[in-house]
Amino acid sequence: MSMNTIPVGLVGVTGYTGMELTRLLAGHGRFTLTRVTSRSECGKKLSDIYPFLQGLPCGDTVITEPDPADLASACELVFLAVPHKTAMEMAAALLDKGLKVVDLSADFRLRDRETYEHWYKCGHTQPHLLETAVYGLPELYETAIRAARLIANPGCYPTSAILGLYPALRNSMVDTKGIVIDAKSGATGAGRKATVGTLFCEVSDTFRAYGLPTHRHTPEIEQEIGLIAGEEMTVSFNTHLLPINRGILSTIYTTLIKDMTLDDVHALYAEAYRSHPWVRVLPAGTLPETRHVRGTMFCDIGLVVDKRTNRLVILSAIDNLCRGASGQALANANLMCGVDIAEGLRLAPLMP
Amino acid sequence: MSMNTIPVGLVGVTGYTGMELTRLLAGHGRFTLTRVTSRSECGKKLSDIYPFLQGLPCGDTVITEPDPADLASACELVFLAVPHKTAMEMAAALLDKGLKVVDLSADFRLRDRETYEHWYKCGHTQPHLLETAVYGLPELYETAIRAARLIANPGCYPTSAILGLYPALRNSMVDTKGIVIDAKSGATGAGRKATVGTLFCEVSDTFRAYGLPTHRHTPEIEQEIGLIAGEEMTVSFNTHLLPINRGILSTIYTTLIKDMTLDDVHALYAEAYRSHPWVRVLPAGTLPETRHVRGTMFCDIGLVVDKRTNRLVILSAIDNLCRGASGQALANANLMCGVDIAEGLRLAPLMP
Amino acid sequence: MSMNTIPVGLVGVTGYTGMELTRLLAGHGRFTLTRVTSRSECGKKLSDIYPFLQGLPCGDTVITEPDPADLASACELVFLAVPHKTAMEMAAALLDKGLKVVDLSADFRLRDRETYEHWYKCGHTQPHLLETAVYGLPELYETAIRAARLIANPGCYPTSAILGLYPALRNSMVDTKGIVIDAKSGATGAGRKATVGTLFCEVSDTFRAYGLPTHRHTPEIEQEIGLIAGEEMTVSFNTHLLPINRGILSTIYTTLIKDMTLDDVHALYAEAYRSHPWVRVLPAGTLPETRHVRGTMFCDIGLVVDKRTNRLVILSAIDNLCRGASGQALANANLMCGVDIAEGLRLAPLMP
Amino acid sequence: MSMNTIPVGLVGVTGYTGMELTRLLAGHGRFTLTRVTSRSECGKKLSDIYPFLQGLPCGDTVITEPDPADLASACELVFLAVPHKTAMEMAAALLDKGLKVVDLSADFRLRDRETYEHWYKCGHTQPHLLETAVYGLPELYETAIRAARLIANPGCYPTSAILGLYPALRNSMVDTKGIVIDAKSGATGAGRKATVGTLFCEVSDTFRAYGLPTHRHTPEIEQEIGLIAGEEMTVSFNTHLLPINRGILSTIYTTLIKDMTLDDVHALYAEAYRSHPWVRVLPAGTLPETRHVRGTMFCDIGLVVDKRTNRLVILSAIDNLCRGASGQALANANLMCGVDIAEGLRLAPLMP
Repeated sequence: MSMNTIPVGLVGVTGYTGMELTRLLAGHGRFTLTRVTSRSECGKKLSDIYPFLQGLPCGDTVITEPDPADLASACELVFLAVPHKTAMEMAAALLDKGLKVVDLSADFRLRDRETYEHWYKCGHTQPHLLETAVYGLPELYETAIRAARLIANPGCYPTSAILGLYPALRNSMVDTKGIVIDAKSGATGAGRKATVGTLFCEVSDTFRAYGLPTHRHTPEIEQEIGLIAGEEMTVSFNTHLLPINRGILSTIYTTLIKDMTLDDVHALYAEAYRSHPWVRVLPAGTLPETRHVRGTMFCDIGLVVDKRTNRLVILSAIDNLCRGASGQALANANLMCGVDIAEGLRLAPLMP
Repeated sequence: MSMNTIPVGLVGVTGYTGMELTRLLAGHGRFTLTRVTSRSECGKKLSDIYPFLQGLPCGDTVITEPDPADLASACELVFLAVPHKTAMEMAAALLDKGLKVVDLSADFRLRDRETYEHWYKCGHTQPHLLETAVYGLPELYETAIRAARLIANPGCYPTSAILGLYPALRNSMVDTKGIVIDAKSGATGAGRKATVGTLFCEVSDTFRAYGLPTHRHTPEIEQEIGLIAGEEMTVSFNTHLLPINRGILSTIYTTLIKDMTLDDVHALYAEAYRSHPWVRVLPAGTLPETRHVRGTMFCDIGLVVDKRTNRLVILSAIDNLCRGASGQALANANLMCGVDIAEGLRLAPLMP
Repeated sequence: MSMNTIPVGLVGVTGYTGMELTRLLAGHGRFTLTRVTSRSECGKKLSDIYPFLQGLPCGDTVITEPDPADLASACELVFLAVPHKTAMEMAAALLDKGLKVVDLSADFRLRDRETYEHWYKCGHTQPHLLETAVYGLPELYETAIRAARLIANPGCYPTSAILGLYPALRNSMVDTKGIVIDAKSGATGAGRKATVGTLFCEVSDTFRAYGLPTHRHTPEIEQEIGLIAGEEMTVSFNTHLLPINRGILSTIYTTLIKDMTLDDVHALYAEAYRSHPWVRVLPAGTLPETRHVRGTMFCDIGLVVDKRTNRLVILSAIDNLCRGASGQALANANLMCGVDIAEGLRLAPLMP
Repeated sequence: MSMNTIPVGLVGVTGYTGMELTRLLAGHGRFTLTRVTSRSECGKKLSDIYPFLQGLPCGDTVITEPDPADLASACELVFLAVPHKTAMEMAAALLDKGLKVVDLSADFRLRDRETYEHWYKCGHTQPHLLETAVYGLPELYETAIRAARLIANPGCYPTSAILGLYPALRNSMVDTKGIVIDAKSGATGAGRKATVGTLFCEVSDTFRAYGLPTHRHTPEIEQEIGLIAGEEMTVSFNTHLLPINRGILSTIYTTLIKDMTLDDVHALYAEAYRSHPWVRVLPAGTLPETRHVRGTMFCDIGLVVDKRTNRLVILSAIDNLCRGASGQALANANLMCGVDIAEGLRLAPLMP
């Protein structure tokens, strides 16, 4: 590459979002991963803990302790792939040192401090940053993201739900009351912590709901779709665990308040995403599948109008790790650093 | 066994419901499988096409052509595990010869001929039998089943949906309008026909909706819950394909019309199924999983009251092949023949 | 049941072998589970930790602390489903109190104390019991099992390997040198402890070898096949992890030392297992599949003679949890208590 | 791109190797897919049959009939992803018209016509091309590939086996007699034809061997390793079906004929592949996993020396679709067209 590279850091590499960032950064032409941190694995090479990285550019990078001063000496931007609470402290420290920060945790997603503290059952120690943080959904906030120093990277479920509902709410197609989001996620969404409930033999060959009726992504969805609709919204948001690694499919039930055909609805969806190629509004009659977006930034949207019940059913599929977390973080970082938004993210789905 | 055994036949053994019946009949103490038919496999032993049956009582049974006269000569009751249309002709022929029939197809489930012809896109050649056929859901129709000569064995999705909604509708807990059933099924539900869409590599590691918005089980659900509610009902019924072999989980969204707590709802559900041990109303806070009912007759029901949205969310899990098809067929046959309903069906779930 | 029931206990219920024993005992007509113990879950009902047991006979059994005196007061026989080292102490204490013991751990499988201490890297505190313990493989040791007070329940891999090799070695068909056992196991074999390496996302959609070249089941296999062959044996035993829950398939490579056809070999295998219906020698040309034995006591054996290489390839499939652990333990307990060996174990495979 | 693009064609797009080529070509900077053919799907756009390609460069390409003249008018090089027999005819026709051809079928892999006709049970109509065809394994034949007009793209199993054995045989480490290859493949290897045996419910949650003892890849492996060893070789090659989509793991059993430590062996393996970065010889103690090479060109090799049995066990993992078929085809095409071998193939594994 003749262009200068931009040094970036990754705090927290032992979870699936950190792992996914290493995969994506291995194919990024402008960012160089100069720091990778983990308290538990420091001193090892990345390829020691992730043999799949052997022979790739970042495979030999040595993992260090997460130290803000050290990160500031070596990076222009840092990705935080650590749990909430830990993230807010680290973000503040890094911003203080002049770094740009993309936080993959939930700590800066909710604009209202009390809402955060109610749903996450803990105090927010950096409430002043809630105002400056930008919600990193590029289709909605690209301009603000370009100017941001702190990105609250969206949750995986909210990404699928908000992109699915955006054209319907913006165009006042549907009743803002009574919306049901029935969401299903692959098991990477449950994280890489060792628990009996996420063992292979406890997830394989079965299916279950979990977290009902108070999944923490609920207020995030309500906040963002409320802003689109221009009114406070309450939705029924319900989550299920799929025996697959990657992928979210949200089946969203709304009630049409206008007399619209499927073609009418489709035209407005296509229009809403005309300049956003990562959102693929599928042809009428085609429904999304999680594998069709596997490993990519695509959000595939399928539309169904049921005349019997007057419902518009919206199906929205993303890869929860790439589009729903690390890929979106990278897109945000691209925008913050003046790099083409698609750099490192021109990925075709792995099929099958 | 000192008691006389009852000779039964199975028409259609190459699909998953036929296969499941052979598994269940291998452990049945009163029924002897005297005839098994298949046009494509006739002449072979059962264990030739199903090596898992080698050494089991029915493994050496030779497959024959489906001939009503021959079946009548050897059986008292016949299970029909053939496609709809084929089933209605065979049922009529067997009833004519004095046999009892349990039909696992959809041909006699809809009480209204026109509804059948509209949803199944074909004429009904035996409409006179629609009146005498009994819908074989034991929890609702046990007395009629005991007296029946023709059982319309319920569909898999309807079994989970009707059992899930029954106490709520019978007790007028919920609005009869606006109900959404978001159902997910394992791949045995798609049948054993060779198609590209159901190949391992097309179903594994992915998730998708299908059949929206007009799955053929919709009128069956509406018919039965309408009878419970005492009014005509229209529901939004939507189906998804899980990358597992067995299991249906239906997530049913209703709106409470009474001021009820979760405990109130739970008490009425427990009461409704007090004398029906196959329906397990789980303790408040416990949600069903498809594996917990794997290979059994259990229908596990979990209940969630969401005060924010005033919704009662009902989760209903069954094994689509056992409770949702062949096991239920066997329970019906037990009742028709004066045998204990649980004979051959006292099965513990295969876990994990 | 008019016959008296026999009270049995289960020490260690939180692992997969303990879980499997609860499944099997739920369908056993002669044993009543009077004690179930677990240090971590004591005080709860079995159905609290295993909702799949709700409504089954043992679902309401309350879990207690593992106390030898209490067990002795309530049981005639106890199953030990705890880790090795813990098992040897408990076994000794229970035998002292006059109980019969079936130990599912490795503590009494190796007849030679030094071999145990070498492979398991720990001292053996009850070496006197090594002489009285009987290796619980019914096809080989049924008479001794009937008279035993302490059973060393075989390992899962050894069960498949020994049954696969027994007729070949007993009849001196193959070279005792150079045997390779390439074994593949489902993930229940790795246990129910929370570790990152056995999370769903680390096992799903992948395949790997592990434990090469010194898996601890090696000396157990060598001990038993050495006894069959009448000479000391050394084999290359290598294990792989399958992304399935249950099942072991061992592909065993031997070299024929006699001029035999496949039919010759098959005849001797059929003869060897003529009176052992759980071992199914498949017809020539049919190969075993793990699903064909799922949830059962069957060991399916397929035979291949490769004239090009003069090799006899033996394929042996079992369910690692049922035949390879808890089901075999139950068969042994049946024999020890004078109950029909097949009681509670007349199970048809769950297919598919 | 400022450089001229090279027009290429793809004959046969409905199978998994054709599908994989569309995925890879979507990210190739020098090749433009100007023709895609299929008899059954002609007239449709690629994204009609493969919605995952919507929005990608080749998604709008219209599928045509396979016509040599038309292909010659539009392409410089053609990939043949059609069944054997069909491939040999098309290859001859395209070569006649001056095109370069990469044939993914088996038709030109065996240098000896009689061997082909014996194992594939059909006549070879283009035997004169067997001499000019180059076996497209870049690590062994890069120079010849650069000059070739017809590439016989290696089989998936042979790719993993040959790369695994190459350093051992080249350095005469192991006995050339008695080698056993125990290979396991994901289900894409079985193709995309609709058959009952490859349905999801017939492959999921199970494991079996197939094709023993005469899998057609046997002579291909023996031919190539015989050339390495400098003598005729006979191996025991045995295949199994994994319930995963992609990936082959070959466990190769050899006998050391020199007194070597694991470090000795490792050093020679590392040396053999020093200039071939796609072959990753893993550190001693690390074993390969199929997911670590998922979607990539990597062949990961793990080495085990078992002193007890004097065996060198070689584990070799590839992605059967990418390295084992379409990716290797693309690497060969790159070499034939003077493009960097890695163009379009700098892929990081999708993890997890």
